[in-house]
Amino acid sequence: MVRKDTVETRVAWEGRSWRLNVLSYLLPDGSVKERGVIDHPGSVLIVPFANNKALMLRQFRIALDSTILELPAGTREPGEEWLSCAQRELREETGFGAANWISLGMVWPAPGITNELMAVYLGRELTEAPLSPDGDEEIEVVPLDFAELISMALNGELQDAKSVVGILRAAAYLKMLPQNQPN
Amino acid sequence: MVRKDTVETRVAWEGRSWRLNVLSYLLPDGSVKERGVIDHPGSVLIVPFANNKALMLRQFRIALDSTILELPAGTREPGEEWLSCAQRELREETGFGAANWISLGMVWPAPGITNELMAVYLGRELTEAPLSPDGDEEIEVVPLDFAELISMALNGELQDAKSVVGILRAAAYLKMLPQNQPN
Repeated sequence: MVRKDTVETRVAWEGRSWRLNVLSYLLPDGSVKERGVIDHPGSVLIVPFANNKALMLRQFRIALDSTILELPAGTREPGEEWLSCAQRELREETGFGAANWISLGMVWPAPGITNELMAVYLGRELTEAPLSPDGDEEIEVVPLDFAELISMALNGELQDAKSVVGILRAAAYLKMLPQNQPN
Repeated sequence: MVRKDTVETRVAWEGRSWRLNVLSYLLPDGSVKERGVIDHPGSVLIVPFANNKALMLRQFRIALDSTILELPAGTREPGEEWLSCAQRELREETGFGAANWISLGMVWPAPGITNELMAVYLGRELTEAPLSPDGDEEIEVVPLDFAELISMALNGELQDAKSVVGILRAAAYLKMLPQNQPN
């Protein structure tokens, strides 16, 4: 395959945690096109599991102008270790810490738009350990039955893609995947 | 919960298929902050399934500066129906059409960044039906064993989040989920 040659990169906008780079690149046919790419520091996703429940969030999302159901997640600070970030975000968003952490791999949430890489963790042995949350997040913590969440991830009821990934990888690790999901 | 009041929206950059809106909004404490939000027309994801294999792609992604393994997917044209879009993208990206289509629900790939909504489909009864692809996509079609793809989605080897969602929802529909995934 022919790699695209970037001719120029400029920053179109820079926000608190990511910036939009606009790349001008040369196509194999000699023409030049622009593509927008979000440069992102990476993020974490946590499946906080206890008593056959997971701690889910109802969180207001500006992009959707609505409140959605999702797992705790957050953006890495510059230079922050992935696991430290997960431990911090869990405490900030749910008020709980976890004593037992299992890595469930990494994912690219949206590789067509951004280089964001997301580390996925299962967090168990939860105890209260609140940390002050970010000032502008609107979050409600909702413990939900894990078997029910697995069904919602598979049947389409759960619409947040990262949460579908986290719940199903955790379900496989915990040997809770249903063999025969009703259609 | 208190909704954030948007004071102003401006377009920071506009590309071929999406644009970056920057929203200035009023926090409950009276301060004003900016947030970047990608305004996206929506997209489709297809699990093309035949003979216990799925047609995967190796596709170069500018954002990652690398070639990754993923399911066929693509962006909606203005006014395009979700299923028509899926049928078009499957033919453009793989050269195959599907006679049998099953909806596997919708997901938000990255609700912290964009309003993109993605419709997920299982496509079966595949026959050759090529359509001219987009000019600047670099794609190789790779048929892979579906049981192996399910393992890769669960064990972290498959890193594209949308593909993990598509493969595992299709696996549930096809009753191919493994009950005891090796850790």
